[in-house]
Amino acid sequence: MKHETPIDHLIKHLSHLPGLGARSARRAALHLLQKREEKLMPLIASLQQAADTIKICSSCGNLDHTDPCRICMDPKRQHGALCIVAHIADLWAIERTGSFQGRYFVLGGVLSALDGVTIEDLKLHQLKEKIAKEQVSEIIIALSATFEAQATSHVILDLLKDSPIPISRLAHGVPVGGELDYLDDGTISTALKSRTGF
Amino acid sequence: MKHETPIDHLIKHLSHLPGLGARSARRAALHLLQKREEKLMPLIASLQQAADTIKICSSCGNLDHTDPCRICMDPKRQHGALCIVAHIADLWAIERTGSFQGRYFVLGGVLSALDGVTIEDLKLHQLKEKIAKEQVSEIIIALSATFEAQATSHVILDLLKDSPIPISRLAHGVPVGGELDYLDDGTISTALKSRTGF
Repeated sequence: MKHETPIDHLIKHLSHLPGLGARSARRAALHLLQKREEKLMPLIASLQQAADTIKICSSCGNLDHTDPCRICMDPKRQHGALCIVAHIADLWAIERTGSFQGRYFVLGGVLSALDGVTIEDLKLHQLKEKIAKEQVSEIIIALSATFEAQATSHVILDLLKDSPIPISRLAHGVPVGGELDYLDDGTISTALKSRTGF
Repeated sequence: MKHETPIDHLIKHLSHLPGLGARSARRAALHLLQKREEKLMPLIASLQQAADTIKICSSCGNLDHTDPCRICMDPKRQHGALCIVAHIADLWAIERTGSFQGRYFVLGGVLSALDGVTIEDLKLHQLKEKIAKEQVSEIIIALSATFEAQATSHVILDLLKDSPIPISRLAHGVPVGGELDYLDDGTISTALKSRTGF
């Protein structure tokens, strides 16, 4: 068993998926190989279909089978509101809530000295272009509450400092369903400072 | 987003993998779609290669790209020792230890009233045939220590009751590295009864 067999090869590629380690990749490979017709072949087909059809939306950076994506093309969405997110996963997370009816812009990451992400790596130029070209009446910066994301917010604010468009960010506070006792001090003091009336 | 899009389709199929839930399937899909050339295409290729080449060994029930599998064909292995396992995963687990040099037979499961697995569902007939045909000098029943597996062991013992071949089973006891305090009473009392000299 010195050179890599097709099974080893499959396990290696499955173990590269986020969420699957070596052990679960082995389980997944066995599962697929034992249910060839019901599981393996449909998975190959859906991966191939995704590879063939999914593209990056040239307007917002989302992934979809159409370009522009269905969100950018949807005439029912408020074209004025633009929500800036760091990653596509964040866009999908907000979409799942169903509580935002505007459109998005995927920045492609946040500044990070650790990961070597600089201002040049973010799609700031495209963002400015999009805002200039389209009729944007409100900008929501929906970045995480990490230090890197906050630094990125400031870069965006700086980029748009001459624009009259109102800019807001996500509220900080106690997560819904969260217990005070388990929250960090920073969140509790922020929630206290930003307290709202009943 | 009423009908299933290629992305939904992909996420659904990924979420069927053991170890991946809906959330991690979404992460995996995004990861694959964002790294098309480095991740998605190689994964499709390795799945397709596995689908094309991997077959079930007609001699032992293992999965391999050759039939008989490389274990059954290896002239360096002791042909006399036969290890009976319930699942292919168990065979792989024993193989990983490198401490068994004989061959295997995959039973295909254990008796289970809950899962509706009866004697007819196990490959007992093929097992008896294999033992009659090949020169087996020792049989090791390597099943789990569950009630169902023990019942299955008794069925195998009954099947081979007229055979002069010595039959053994895996030792029960304290797992290596395991702490007594965290072990169940059954294991501790079995380990005590089966105590060995230094």
